[in-house]
Amino acid sequence: MPIFKPIHENEAKGKVKEIFDEIKTTRQITEVPNFWKMLANDSSELDRTWSSLKEVMKKGALDPVTKELIYVAVSITNGCEYCIKSHSVAAKKKGATDEMLKEMFAVVGLANKNNKLVDSYQVEVDDIYK
Amino acid sequence: MPIFKPIHENEAKGKVKEIFDEIKTTRQITEVPNFWKMLANDSSELDRTWSSLKEVMKKGALDPVTKELIYVAVSITNGCEYCIKSHSVAAKKKGATDEMLKEMFAVVGLANKNNKLVDSYQVEVDDIYK
Amino acid sequence: MPIFKPIHENEAKGKVKEIFDEIKTTRQITEVPNFWKMLANDSSELDRTWSSLKEVMKKGALDPVTKELIYVAVSITNGCEYCIKSHSVAAKKKGATDEMLKEMFAVVGLANKNNKLVDSYQVEVDDIYK
Amino acid sequence: MPIFKPIHENEAKGKVKEIFDEIKTTRQITEVPNFWKMLANDSSELDRTWSSLKEVMKKGALDPVTKELIYVAVSITNGCEYCIKSHSVAAKKKGATDEMLKEMFAVVGLANKNNKLVDSYQVEVDDIYK
Amino acid sequence: MPIFKPIHENEAKGKVKEIFDEIKTTRQITEVPNFWKMLANDSSELDRTWSSLKEVMKKGALDPVTKELIYVAVSITNGCEYCIKSHSVAAKKKGATDEMLKEMFAVVGLANKNNKLVDSYQVEVDDIYK
Amino acid sequence: MPIFKPIHENEAKGKVKEIFDEIKTTRQITEVPNFWKMLANDSSELDRTWSSLKEVMKKGALDPVTKELIYVAVSITNGCEYCIKSHSVAAKKKGATDEMLKEMFAVVGLANKNNKLVDSYQVEVDDIYK
Repeated sequence: MPIFKPIHENEAKGKVKEIFDEIKTTRQITEVPNFWKMLANDSSELDRTWSSLKEVMKKGALDPVTKELIYVAVSITNGCEYCIKSHSVAAKKKGATDEMLKEMFAVVGLANKNNKLVDSYQVEVDDIYK
Repeated sequence: MPIFKPIHENEAKGKVKEIFDEIKTTRQITEVPNFWKMLANDSSELDRTWSSLKEVMKKGALDPVTKELIYVAVSITNGCEYCIKSHSVAAKKKGATDEMLKEMFAVVGLANKNNKLVDSYQVEVDDIYK
Repeated sequence: MPIFKPIHENEAKGKVKEIFDEIKTTRQITEVPNFWKMLANDSSELDRTWSSLKEVMKKGALDPVTKELIYVAVSITNGCEYCIKSHSVAAKKKGATDEMLKEMFAVVGLANKNNKLVDSYQVEVDDIYK
Repeated sequence: MPIFKPIHENEAKGKVKEIFDEIKTTRQITEVPNFWKMLANDSSELDRTWSSLKEVMKKGALDPVTKELIYVAVSITNGCEYCIKSHSVAAKKKGATDEMLKEMFAVVGLANKNNKLVDSYQVEVDDIYK
Repeated sequence: MPIFKPIHENEAKGKVKEIFDEIKTTRQITEVPNFWKMLANDSSELDRTWSSLKEVMKKGALDPVTKELIYVAVSITNGCEYCIKSHSVAAKKKGATDEMLKEMFAVVGLANKNNKLVDSYQVEVDDIYK
Repeated sequence: MPIFKPIHENEAKGKVKEIFDEIKTTRQITEVPNFWKMLANDSSELDRTWSSLKEVMKKGALDPVTKELIYVAVSITNGCEYCIKSHSVAAKKKGATDEMLKEMFAVVGLANKNNKLVDSYQVEVDDIYK
């Protein structure tokens, strides 16, 4: 039993209700995901997180699919199950193919291994990178 | 002083020399980076790591730039300075712009924050992701 | 199925029984939590861990609530579900309010993000901190 | 050599200059720290991060000293040297004593150990926490 | 629901089938574990991972039991439940006793604590280690 | 500049001096390493950490070399440079060969990769491990 209870949609008021509505419209979903229902316990954090997400994940120099893949790669490295599941689905919805996901997984595996080999052998930064 | 010493190019023999040459040719560089010189202390690991890298980082469903960005995102999450520096340079060399790097950094920051908010509030996986 | 089985209270003998009794008395609980039942498989580790916990978590320059909040902040950063749940409850029992928990969560989220932005941009330590 | 160069105060314009000025005023310092100079390469991220910091770290149910201690605890757990150094100094400036810092360190050490003992023994969540 | 489905043994073909058979023979088991069934979605990754595992975990200067204990120690530090469970069982199968596992757990706990104390106190590398 | 200064041997008194002497005798070294000099700022933590280390790292079901290798494996996974350097040296002093270190590095690299592949593919625990 988590310390906090989710704020259900029929309990949402003011800023929280506004954000809940925006989440559903933007994502074209009919139910607010648990992450946002839990964050709603702290309406300032909900607001900060949703605003950042909208801004950071939108199309820019990188397309939204690439951003979702990077998001999942970080979540795998941190072992966050909820984040892996929800953002893998988001990646697919935005157009990521199974091949893209599998290649991302392979890069994540390799990078995690090589990060540790660098520490194992205490590799010093090459002069050209200094 | 690391426990192991780098294997310098003029000391490289057999399989190690072959891989050193291939690294320089593939990357069009004139000096083998320290990572590979250190790994060369274990020629099997050098071989496994170089073969995997060639296979995993090559163009596929994802282009090499995206793969480098994902590699750097993982390295940031793990705090591996050598890996961040060397693969940021690799990303730029393969065509990543400054804007792309900065957007990737923003996604990495956001994902690391949200990964922890999920754990803070002990968010349960939504039925639709189960 | 974990490799080890919990040592139940009716199986506890000697030093283990003594510590089990002390845990229940100190915390005013009627059942030894699973963490201690599992640690009891290694009575030296049980002893070391319980002695350290008593000493480290007691009132000092920091009050016990602040210490529990710090403990939970670390556990969130490491993604340890058991530790988050049990020490959030402990924090509340010792007087932490919901507001305090939520503000701690916000700090944890922010710090995790900023830690990674520092690595992203490879920020060098300012002279005044050197 | 980091990929990006710090934006020096005399190069700062518009929103960036405004935030730089606010950082110096709020903190009563005469030089903008490197973290913010580097973030200024991405003015949106600078804005988001500074706004969040102001909001999250201000006095609330938790006092600013406690918040800085939690921030440092997270930074230690992530091994972020810059963040440990700069926020330990911030904690002291806001009133943290050496004793408070040392007790926080002890809690961080203990929590990191116990987090891993929980995973070692695969401790199951007690019914009372479910 | 994971994004990918396990490749069941009766669906396995070519290289995948070959590796599945080898896994069962080498380990003297009658059912391919889920890890390999999932990896089989990417036959190149399956091949790379299985070849590496065979090579890295075999008897060398370190015996297979020690290698499994090190593998579990890393998995605990990363909080990977599946890996802890499966490789603890593998360690026992290869001859690890309960005492060995418990001593390894104690080392993992201690090392995780001390790693963070080093960061807390920002310990500088002694001249003799430089 | 770390927040705390090392306690030098000529400043050590009482319990701290006693432990400093014991460290030098046990390890047959003439200078107390920086880790202990820094920890001495908190004499209770110094005491707890040194007592645990003596107890945990001594010969038991696992020999001291294996324990040092496990300690280094954890430190690599956490990216703790000081700990990697000092305990690699300790491992060698106690009898670890270069081959043993290199094989341990390979296991650490592989385990770190596979830990993340498990999370990538969201592998479910096999019935036989439940």
